[in-house]
Amino acid sequence: VSFAALDSALLGPLFATEAMRAVFDDAARLNAMLQAEAALAEALATAGLAPAGLAAAIAALDATKLDVPALGEATAQAGVPVIPFVAAVRKRLPADLEPAFHFGATTQDIGDTALVLQMRAAMRLVLADSLAVLDGLAALAQRHRQTLCVARSYGQHAAPITFGHRVAVWGLGLADVLDGWPALCPRVLVASLGGPVGTLAAYGDKGPTVLEDYARGLDLSSSPLAWHVRRGGMVGMASWLGALLAALGKMAGDIVYLGSTDVGEVAEPHQPGRGGSSAMPHKRNPVGATVIAAATLAAPGLVATMLHAAGQAEGERPAGAWHAEWHALPMLFGLASGALREAKAIAAGLTMDEARMMENLGRTRGLVFADAAAARLAAGMGAAAAHALIERAADTVRRTGKSLQDVLATEPGVDAAALKAAFDLTPARDAAALSADRGVVSIRAVRDRLATMKEI
Amino acid sequence: VSFAALDSALLGPLFATEAMRAVFDDAARLNAMLQAEAALAEALATAGLAPAGLAAAIAALDATKLDVPALGEATAQAGVPVIPFVAAVRKRLPADLEPAFHFGATTQDIGDTALVLQMRAAMRLVLADSLAVLDGLAALAQRHRQTLCVARSYGQHAAPITFGHRVAVWGLGLADVLDGWPALCPRVLVASLGGPVGTLAAYGDKGPTVLEDYARGLDLSSSPLAWHVRRGGMVGMASWLGALLAALGKMAGDIVYLGSTDVGEVAEPHQPGRGGSSAMPHKRNPVGATVIAAATLAAPGLVATMLHAAGQAEGERPAGAWHAEWHALPMLFGLASGALREAKAIAAGLTMDEARMMENLGRTRGLVFADAAAARLAAGMGAAAAHALIERAADTVRRTGKSLQDVLATEPGVDAAALKAAFDLTPARDAAALSADRGVVSIRAVRDRLATMKEI
Amino acid sequence: VSFAALDSALLGPLFATEAMRAVFDDAARLNAMLQAEAALAEALATAGLAPAGLAAAIAALDATKLDVPALGEATAQAGVPVIPFVAAVRKRLPADLEPAFHFGATTQDIGDTALVLQMRAAMRLVLADSLAVLDGLAALAQRHRQTLCVARSYGQHAAPITFGHRVAVWGLGLADVLDGWPALCPRVLVASLGGPVGTLAAYGDKGPTVLEDYARGLDLSSSPLAWHVRRGGMVGMASWLGALLAALGKMAGDIVYLGSTDVGEVAEPHQPGRGGSSAMPHKRNPVGATVIAAATLAAPGLVATMLHAAGQAEGERPAGAWHAEWHALPMLFGLASGALREAKAIAAGLTMDEARMMENLGRTRGLVFADAAAARLAAGMGAAAAHALIERAADTVRRTGKSLQDVLATEPGVDAAALKAAFDLTPARDAAALSADRGVVSIRAVRDRLATMKEI
Amino acid sequence: VSFAALDSALLGPLFATEAMRAVFDDAARLNAMLQAEAALAEALATAGLAPAGLAAAIAALDATKLDVPALGEATAQAGVPVIPFVAAVRKRLPADLEPAFHFGATTQDIGDTALVLQMRAAMRLVLADSLAVLDGLAALAQRHRQTLCVARSYGQHAAPITFGHRVAVWGLGLADVLDGWPALCPRVLVASLGGPVGTLAAYGDKGPTVLEDYARGLDLSSSPLAWHVRRGGMVGMASWLGALLAALGKMAGDIVYLGSTDVGEVAEPHQPGRGGSSAMPHKRNPVGATVIAAATLAAPGLVATMLHAAGQAEGERPAGAWHAEWHALPMLFGLASGALREAKAIAAGLTMDEARMMENLGRTRGLVFADAAAARLAAGMGAAAAHALIERAADTVRRTGKSLQDVLATEPGVDAAALKAAFDLTPARDAAALSADRGVVSIRAVRDRLATMKEI
Repeated sequence: VSFAALDSALLGPLFATEAMRAVFDDAARLNAMLQAEAALAEALATAGLAPAGLAAAIAALDATKLDVPALGEATAQAGVPVIPFVAAVRKRLPADLEPAFHFGATTQDIGDTALVLQMRAAMRLVLADSLAVLDGLAALAQRHRQTLCVARSYGQHAAPITFGHRVAVWGLGLADVLDGWPALCPRVLVASLGGPVGTLAAYGDKGPTVLEDYARGLDLSSSPLAWHVRRGGMVGMASWLGALLAALGKMAGDIVYLGSTDVGEVAEPHQPGRGGSSAMPHKRNPVGATVIAAATLAAPGLVATMLHAAGQAEGERPAGAWHAEWHALPMLFGLASGALREAKAIAAGLTMDEARMMENLGRTRGLVFADAAAARLAAGMGAAAAHALIERAADTVRRTGKSLQDVLATEPGVDAAALKAAFDLTPARDAAALSADRGVVSIRAVRDRLATMKEI
Repeated sequence: VSFAALDSALLGPLFATEAMRAVFDDAARLNAMLQAEAALAEALATAGLAPAGLAAAIAALDATKLDVPALGEATAQAGVPVIPFVAAVRKRLPADLEPAFHFGATTQDIGDTALVLQMRAAMRLVLADSLAVLDGLAALAQRHRQTLCVARSYGQHAAPITFGHRVAVWGLGLADVLDGWPALCPRVLVASLGGPVGTLAAYGDKGPTVLEDYARGLDLSSSPLAWHVRRGGMVGMASWLGALLAALGKMAGDIVYLGSTDVGEVAEPHQPGRGGSSAMPHKRNPVGATVIAAATLAAPGLVATMLHAAGQAEGERPAGAWHAEWHALPMLFGLASGALREAKAIAAGLTMDEARMMENLGRTRGLVFADAAAARLAAGMGAAAAHALIERAADTVRRTGKSLQDVLATEPGVDAAALKAAFDLTPARDAAALSADRGVVSIRAVRDRLATMKEI
Repeated sequence: VSFAALDSALLGPLFATEAMRAVFDDAARLNAMLQAEAALAEALATAGLAPAGLAAAIAALDATKLDVPALGEATAQAGVPVIPFVAAVRKRLPADLEPAFHFGATTQDIGDTALVLQMRAAMRLVLADSLAVLDGLAALAQRHRQTLCVARSYGQHAAPITFGHRVAVWGLGLADVLDGWPALCPRVLVASLGGPVGTLAAYGDKGPTVLEDYARGLDLSSSPLAWHVRRGGMVGMASWLGALLAALGKMAGDIVYLGSTDVGEVAEPHQPGRGGSSAMPHKRNPVGATVIAAATLAAPGLVATMLHAAGQAEGERPAGAWHAEWHALPMLFGLASGALREAKAIAAGLTMDEARMMENLGRTRGLVFADAAAARLAAGMGAAAAHALIERAADTVRRTGKSLQDVLATEPGVDAAALKAAFDLTPARDAAALSADRGVVSIRAVRDRLATMKEI
Repeated sequence: VSFAALDSALLGPLFATEAMRAVFDDAARLNAMLQAEAALAEALATAGLAPAGLAAAIAALDATKLDVPALGEATAQAGVPVIPFVAAVRKRLPADLEPAFHFGATTQDIGDTALVLQMRAAMRLVLADSLAVLDGLAALAQRHRQTLCVARSYGQHAAPITFGHRVAVWGLGLADVLDGWPALCPRVLVASLGGPVGTLAAYGDKGPTVLEDYARGLDLSSSPLAWHVRRGGMVGMASWLGALLAALGKMAGDIVYLGSTDVGEVAEPHQPGRGGSSAMPHKRNPVGATVIAAATLAAPGLVATMLHAAGQAEGERPAGAWHAEWHALPMLFGLASGALREAKAIAAGLTMDEARMMENLGRTRGLVFADAAAARLAAGMGAAAAHALIERAADTVRRTGKSLQDVLATEPGVDAAALKAAFDLTPARDAAALSADRGVVSIRAVRDRLATMKEI
């Protein structure tokens, strides 16, 4: 079944990585649920609330032996998968251990904790790929710190920059998001255990200890208060992934543009068979950027769903809002996985056509130096007058096909030395190179900070 | 793989019907693609652009024989599934037929047409279930046209209505959306054939005929102009499903509220094992309403994605916007299928507690007659004075626990007959019953109009 | 105050028309509320439920005399503007008329009806501007039915089309949406009158007549059942505006691309001072397309809000969902007004550079004829072989800078006549011209259908 | 003009605070733009790039003297307000100072920096009100740590908790969001200065110093790289406000429910005239919760718009994506201001009906002790058997109206002491009280951390 393209055997490999697909399948979900129950059993045993052997008995169970279709059918009755899951596991436990199984917990405790465990695995994949993208972009920016090209504003050629500056903007855009990682992790990696109404009531005064031990057993943190209807962590995760995809999407959009036949400044790394067309054999479609762009378009709606679900988490357990998260949150990880895979390939292997960059830079016959010229001339004639002069000269350039420098040279009151300086590419290139350098330093600072963080 | 809960073997049966799950799986998609190619071959043969046997040869192929994982891997390279699909089919066709296969078409022609074919199957399911819901709600509204209960405004008891009136509002809310069905179908059920750039150029002057025959062969309509980057139909489909889910969600929200332990006026039809709790064995969770509410929360973000994709369909084929639709549109059908299944069950079997309705109606000790009383008293003392008097009396009711009728009876200048009339439930009941009747007539008019439409 | 750019004196004129700004201001809202109350008074008088002079007395009131800041302060207390409005109007009415004022109505009746009246005025503006855009685009498409340019798919040059074909796609995309207008209007232009709980209870058996007369007096239709919590019409309006903006956004995105310095095929109509830059005096930013693109980006979130609000219209009046509509629905009209104004200007005055179009068409040295060539060659060597040959030849073109035609000419087994035919622009131009023609006919059919509709 | 309810003189006071309305009006915007230009002038003077008197001359200008309608008209031409603003200011500056005005900057530098300055003022308001809400909720949770009430799951009574626990969940939900404040501020409070293409090219090697001085002069931080098309900070701000509103919305939804006539456990603080109805004089609508709920519904769509805008920030300045932010970001501050004002009032003055809470707690005749009973009985008979017994007994309770305790007492094998203990409210109350305590400590820890932060 593939309502989501991400889940299709046909389309899914295009949009999500195999590693991420493995994190979000039913077997992984059931395993994570068993893991949560085993940790609970261990914590209960420590507190004297369950027999010592229960955790081991749970851990010994094989999730792949569970009859998933039968569980699915029962879930459609129960409304949540944990109920049939608990019933199915109970049947497989020895009679003396069974009563303490799932003791004091509620479906949401196990469901949410299992999701957190899946998310931790997913987050590791996201982090690893993100760092690789940062690395790739930092290196690319550095390598092209002086590679001249034209900046575009509203699609119009604006002024010279370097390709390294542009890449640094991409990289720092991603780094900005990754910078939020250290604050994000502790908000997300929280075990859920509150019992039916969130007060751990079944454990009496041992509640806090059971919770601590349970969380520690899963290498998660615990929360002072059940988060059944406090969904800030889930919202934070979704928003972060949304921001990540927006940062990648900005880069992808640029690559589609710069890689267009009309511009031709870059191309995605060539792989045989990649980006062909069934009808147009000569085409090299930017498949990677397409995957990223599609993810970027699909993500914000999913983030909005998470925000709505959080805002509607009524009472001590909502009828719908919790379930709505299941329609949205894992999808965001799937989209991120594919987008990062493509971004990594792009960062590592983007092809550049420097000759075409220079050619494009000259396309306006000097108009891209207008700002520099205006600044130089303003010193002599005032900003308003200089601005007006340039506007007039630009019209002449467009009308006659002459270069701006030549047109301005014939204007009275224009200082020849100032003019020459204005059309010198060096200052623009140097400024952009330094900008790229600053960006690279910042990107690498974020990368280093995250790389040295101990395993989440 | 189950990034989407809809696609999970564990969770999917809760959220989508088996019938809809069959429509949106990979085998169905490949079948639809073969069907589109066969129709194209037939149309080409008629125009003398393909050998006569090609269509039959395509139709004879078995989609289940295609190596889906291999196609998936190739799709990840190509960027669209049609390219490896075309290659794989070509290999299975006789050498003399192969050259004309897919002639003049582009990937999007086949991909979009296949999706339309899947959507047609899905729409039939949606229509059938929707009509059943309309039927059920109309009958329920009629049956309870005089069943008194209290209306709630901002959660506050407002005035007496009947349960039939409330159900009619649910039903007409759904009927409003279904009323748009006849206009929707021709916008959606359109074959896609434009060739690489949308102009049918490969067919020369036979383009329009080929297009007509192709569409007719699929029992779809054709469009005067390729719709590769004209996505109004897809947007219309998504918005319609979003509106459908909003209408169902309004009902579901009411049922959660009315079925709460605090209100207790309704309950979802009882099925053994339905809506239990792993921790609270006495609970009967409103599973049906939960499924609907989750779908209602998840849908708007997907509709928004479709609108964004349509707005960004740049050039003659976009890099990302088309793919983004695959992340959103089929999901909406999945969500609708589960929500309609639950709505159907609710409409057919909702349990009502009329005694509880009357008990709740009396909970304000007559304050719900305040509007009627104000209206009656206004005749004698002016609206403002009557309004002020009622506000004062309401305070007394709340403070003393006396009934509003008793409090007002002691007020000077209050006409006893007017007072008695104001607290008579008959007018409110009759007005609500007539309102329910009007609603039922309208619901059934929509139902009848759609039921007699020939098969889409 | 300008939380919304649309409402700012500084930014608003850029994003919304003066005419639309006048429709959605406080004075217009108060006027519409008075108009609704007057129509109600008239209907009540006819039914003998209000004195004959009341409607005239209301109509004689001057909305501009109402103390809006005081009403605003009172609204913050009451939670809805209708309550202080009713109180303020009551004070201005003669004592004998006052008791019947607003009789039997509820705040939402007046609030929603007033909004419908504002929306009708807004819809007229939208329709008029939309028809003008259709007209302009149809004429433009016709004029350029044979103007050759290159089609772009994933940003890659694909094959020759004509500019008229492209414009026809834009126009028909808009026409698709407008085609839904006749079905939309009756869903939206519905008077609201249900009384406190939607049953018209205060009017006894005269309810339906009062409702009919009220609606007729406002030249609106009536609904068999109150629509206080049946928001399909509002959702339909929002979705329609969202689809309209998506259609315009597709065009705007193309114009930004085609008008980029790199492509240079079109430019927005020149107006002195338009689209300048504070820093780059030579630039001509595509201001119109920018306004449209921003609206297209902002609209889907607002549509989603409307869907959520509809899905959460709990009970007989919701606490929040109705109010949420006020944050979203008028904004969509504002965005549409500015986008349509700009689209109209673009359709009427877009500048084209046909030489540049031809130059760009040649940029791939014949690769854009690859599909045509493959088709011609397939006849002789089979589709797969032809496809492979073209792929190889395309590589040579890219490597050597030779033209595709020249490369293919040297290949063994390539038929010279077939080759010549493949590189002939005529068939592509003719196919595109016919496509444009079909589009123009369809656009004009929609335009004519709407233009002859009687005034909404 | 009031496309947005927030901007209406009639509706705005309901939805936004006066203080926030003052932050986002045109005068404040123009002032902030002047402030940014003055800081730039100062920084340029320090670098020897502008005359010393320029900053003072700018600071001496009176924003209220600018002709806003004329600027608005010019903005509609220019596409951005900064261009006419710069022109207007130039005219008011002495001729010798004018050339250096705005030197090296681009429109987006001034526009974004001005928005950041407005946002800083807005953020201060948000923080102050948020802290007040935290304070109020912490005190409320503490006061009611032992006030018994019933927990609700899917609308069903679940088990006893205390009101303090519930309030602590609200408070900690908000605290979770506020916990992100310290990380948010440095991402948002960043001056924008990059010049036309983001490289500070006009300043030569003085670029970094000018940027530092400019930022310091505004008490903002600077970024190593221009953020014209790196919108992570703006997205972070929007997501944070969206999460804030979701946290408040969860509380508001609970209050609407708990304050319903059916439940009657809480009421919003009474103010004369608050929450009345034009038709139902006795009603006390939860106006505060309504305002919050509407904001919660409207926010996610705006957050999604910001994500889309960030993902589409193409090139060095996008055509539409930047402008789209203006349609969304300030709206979020407006919505937050009203929601926080209402939350503050609710936190400070929520009325509770403890008798009603106890009455509701008893409504299921002991079924809410089912979980506790199952746990106690499981010790003797195994969990599955206990669960089944309770299910059966619950049926009897529902059928006969007897209490669960009485029903279970007659069952064989039920231990009397265990039964008595299971129906003791003390453990549930104590567990909830301790839970509330933990929550209060955590809420206050966040509050204290933020309160001692130096002024942002």
